Amino acid sequence: MDYKVMKKVLEANEFLAGDIRRLLAEKKTVMFNLISSPGSGKTTILEKTIPLLSSKYKIGIIEGDVETERDAQRLQRFDLPMVLINTHGACHLDSETVLSALQEMPLDDLDIIFVENVGNLVCPAEFDIGENGKIAVLSTPEGDDKPQKYPLLFRECKLVLLNKIDLLSVVNFSLSDFCEDLSTLNGSIPILEMAATSGMGVDEWLQWIEQAVQEEREAWLQETNC
Amino acid sequence: MDYKVMKKVLEANEFLAGDIRRLLAEKKTVMFNLISSPGSGKTTILEKTIPLLSSKYKIGIIEGDVETERDAQRLQRFDLPMVLINTHGACHLDSETVLSALQEMPLDDLDIIFVENVGNLVCPAEFDIGENGKIAVLSTPEGDDKPQKYPLLFRECKLVLLNKIDLLSVVNFSLSDFCEDLSTLNGSIPILEMAATSGMGVDEWLQWIEQAVQEEREAWLQETNC
Repeated sequence: MDYKVMKKVLEANEFLAGDIRRLLAEKKTVMFNLISSPGSGKTTILEKTIPLLSSKYKIGIIEGDVETERDAQRLQRFDLPMVLINTHGACHLDSETVLSALQEMPLDDLDIIFVENVGNLVCPAEFDIGENGKIAVLSTPEGDDKPQKYPLLFRECKLVLLNKIDLLSVVNFSLSDFCEDLSTLNGSIPILEMAATSGMGVDEWLQWIEQAVQEEREAWLQETNC
Repeated sequence: MDYKVMKKVLEANEFLAGDIRRLLAEKKTVMFNLISSPGSGKTTILEKTIPLLSSKYKIGIIEGDVETERDAQRLQRFDLPMVLINTHGACHLDSETVLSALQEMPLDDLDIIFVENVGNLVCPAEFDIGENGKIAVLSTPEGDDKPQKYPLLFRECKLVLLNKIDLLSVVNFSLSDFCEDLSTLNGSIPILEMAATSGMGVDEWLQWIEQAVQEEREAWLQETNC
């Protein structure tokens, strides 16, 4: 795409992302943006997370999908406020569609919103959707070279969930290379090892969420005091 | 992105894709476009394919990558004509960049060009690059639901390489669901099971390539005779 066109698209997106950030701050709702390749385990991670987190927080879901409702159907059983965004071919969620989705949600009554972005390591990282944190999910079969190959996401995210860690012995993945590349790109970025299907690492992930929510709330409080 | 802008971008792309098709027909070079998520095994498949195919065909490579030269470096040892396209953030190859790459290659002396597209199941499928066939690569850890979730690629491709079939017993993947979804989307699409790291399925893949090259050559011959 023409560079100038892309710049305009990103500027318009950034403007609305600011609106989303203000809306979330006003409503005291923390929004996490889960980004990964297709099949890394985002939906499974949410399936494991929601029941354990629901006793403490009120949760909403924005489910991004190119065509189907499959992931949304998997999460429907939790009976949470959920908006499905079908992008019909587009490779990422943008601020305009996310803002529309948020306007359909009971924000006064939500503590946390998880956005499951379209499965793609490239474009979703370029589009700020006003989230309080991008979370990169990578699974071990995808290979340890992905941070170097898709640096924008791994540079911008607040946390890396390394999923399918139970497959480490049968795939070609060097944990030390992976961690070294990540630390070059993104200093002290936390990396949580996880096997979502068995529940391994889920406790640490819940602790990370609690901490992140706490930090956002304190930041909002400080802004109000200024 | 605005619908009209996207339509213009795709129309301009389609125009140049026609130029590429004419160029390849004139030079009698068959071009395959490998599309998959990051980490499904495209580069490993090429590493296994090139030495076995080189005795019969002269091969060239167009290597698409968002930022690094990692994949190109892995293929450099084969000493083939290769052009690396770094997209610097863009999520797919388009006709303009591929046409530029082709103009740097010794087309009179090449039988087959493999394009390794940017790792992404969405956008590369939307951009016709004048190839003689798209080849979808999916690995079993990515899950059996991907054809339904990313239908454009699986509808348009001429072949599906189902890689990492050796992991079938340790991942959540139903072969019968996968094949059923594919056949709904794309009739009699051939599916080759493969474990590129061990070489399993590579012979069948080579046979498919030979057959596809033969068919293109016969089609070009018929066009010349008309």
